[in-house]
Amino acid sequence: MSAAAVNLQVRLAQRPAGMPRDECWDVSSTPVPQPGAGEILVRNDYISLDPAMRGWIRDVRSYIPPVQIGEVMRAGTAGEVVASGNPKFAVGTKVSGWLGVQQFAVSDGQDLVSVDDSVAPLPLFLATLGMPGMTAYFGLLDVGQPQPGDTVVVSAAAGAVGQVAGQIAKIKGCRVVGLAGSAEKCRYVVDELGFDACIDYKSESVADSLKQHCPKGVNLYFDNVGGEILDQVLRRLAPKARVVICGAVSQYNNEGPTVGPSNYLTLLVSRARMEGFVVMDYASRYREAATDMAGWIASGQLLSKLDIVAGLESFPATLRKLFTGENFGKLLIKV
Amino acid sequence: MSAAAVNLQVRLAQRPAGMPRDECWDVSSTPVPQPGAGEILVRNDYISLDPAMRGWIRDVRSYIPPVQIGEVMRAGTAGEVVASGNPKFAVGTKVSGWLGVQQFAVSDGQDLVSVDDSVAPLPLFLATLGMPGMTAYFGLLDVGQPQPGDTVVVSAAAGAVGQVAGQIAKIKGCRVVGLAGSAEKCRYVVDELGFDACIDYKSESVADSLKQHCPKGVNLYFDNVGGEILDQVLRRLAPKARVVICGAVSQYNNEGPTVGPSNYLTLLVSRARMEGFVVMDYASRYREAATDMAGWIASGQLLSKLDIVAGLESFPATLRKLFTGENFGKLLIKV
Repeated sequence: MSAAAVNLQVRLAQRPAGMPRDECWDVSSTPVPQPGAGEILVRNDYISLDPAMRGWIRDVRSYIPPVQIGEVMRAGTAGEVVASGNPKFAVGTKVSGWLGVQQFAVSDGQDLVSVDDSVAPLPLFLATLGMPGMTAYFGLLDVGQPQPGDTVVVSAAAGAVGQVAGQIAKIKGCRVVGLAGSAEKCRYVVDELGFDACIDYKSESVADSLKQHCPKGVNLYFDNVGGEILDQVLRRLAPKARVVICGAVSQYNNEGPTVGPSNYLTLLVSRARMEGFVVMDYASRYREAATDMAGWIASGQLLSKLDIVAGLESFPATLRKLFTGENFGKLLIKV
Repeated sequence: MSAAAVNLQVRLAQRPAGMPRDECWDVSSTPVPQPGAGEILVRNDYISLDPAMRGWIRDVRSYIPPVQIGEVMRAGTAGEVVASGNPKFAVGTKVSGWLGVQQFAVSDGQDLVSVDDSVAPLPLFLATLGMPGMTAYFGLLDVGQPQPGDTVVVSAAAGAVGQVAGQIAKIKGCRVVGLAGSAEKCRYVVDELGFDACIDYKSESVADSLKQHCPKGVNLYFDNVGGEILDQVLRRLAPKARVVICGAVSQYNNEGPTVGPSNYLTLLVSRARMEGFVVMDYASRYREAATDMAGWIASGQLLSKLDIVAGLESFPATLRKLFTGENFGKLLIKV
């Protein structure tokens, strides 16, 4: 590392109302920090962009404290140790963690895990083998309790979490119907990922297509989007259905209140439950999930679609792709 | 029975839009029917009025078929066998069942149970020892899974189901906070039923009072009302909270769509679940519940507040009391 190297960073400049515009972010450089005793310097090679980010920059109490104005934006990262004063992390070690939207970061190593990029390419540790994969795994299996033969519906089926949730449901013997926002995404979900059907919610009647593809009702709905799609699926719940609330990306940029599910009383008629979860609660079981998923990746049963955008300075515009549905697969920035 | 006796009946004349007005009902007389071989004639002494009735007269598929135009209105009833051609039901036997809003009915006995009014007064078999009691028992205990020390919130706490749910929660060692629609109801709920607190939602800020009475959050919410109160309770869920959807009386007369819970994403943040149920699913366990509840009634731990209105012809106006909150306790008509 040359002492003259700069560290490009993205800091929260102001809290957005609605869609986060460019002026919400301060993209600027500082000198690369130097690790002290016991610390390491990491070069972030990939930055994870996730819908949850919209929640983290809202000034409300949640499962994690909000990012403050002036702070480097929180993000999952994967990169390489480039200087080390910590015997646990040799220079050259590949690591994943929460080092934020910046080129370099100093860490004491406690919030990092070393990853083996001979098992899978580095960006996959921010996708199927990272938080989105863990979210899909525990949300689907632990909260959703799929049974063989169940009809499982997954929204944002081409997205980071949805693609994994749907493929695991297939592995577990379910019929899987996705929802995605273009014909191209739907083709991918069916032809490549092996879903039984996929509804293009931008061009089809969701109500009619759900009726067609789920004639016996929906046993398990893995919801990433909320809003109108959630309401339509609620109308088709089978008895004892499970609705897993993973997210509500259609609602995150509302300037008014979240639109609640008008059809929630079908929970009563269908003796069904709607349940939320936070993936971090499962941290002690990540290894179990990673072992399962690495096995499925190796056997070709679990594919990963990545959408990699180049350049940290693209962060403000790239983040918006998550909320317009322009991303196709797990969205990452290659630094 | 004199052959000249008449049978006053209430039939559905038209489906209501919004609150069911008088013209929705046809109150008229027919001759008293005569039981054939294997049949009995029952004189209905008490008719149960329940919020679920609003759903039964809506022309939509639900957990039970809708009442058709021209049919006698469905209702739970308690009465006495006055003529019998069925050896299982001697004249004078007290029976409970679903004989509808009418003075007399003929039955083959299959949908009736004989009840022992030395255990409890006859109307109690339409209240705590009837469907509302079973609803409270299984909804609270089986769906809600209360743990000792939990903070349990019950809406419509002075109503037929709420009063039982709250008292059972107290018996199970919970802190119980009710919501009711008048100072008089709140006093009753706290002073007579032993709830720890009761919020008068018509005169207090529900948000502020929930915060005050549930400082550690709400572990279990037994919801009978939906709407704004559900939304306020969702804001205060404790981790791993359970929201039992028993009903949504605030929404049953909407002319537009049901208002969904805008704050449903707190399910995610709180890792909580919202679950519906239908009491009829528990029919095989009613005896177990009745045994428990008869014991608690005998020991004075489970009181029942009844609101008994005289005269079958009052049905149209009396039913509306359920939706304006004018009833105080389990609403019944004494025929």
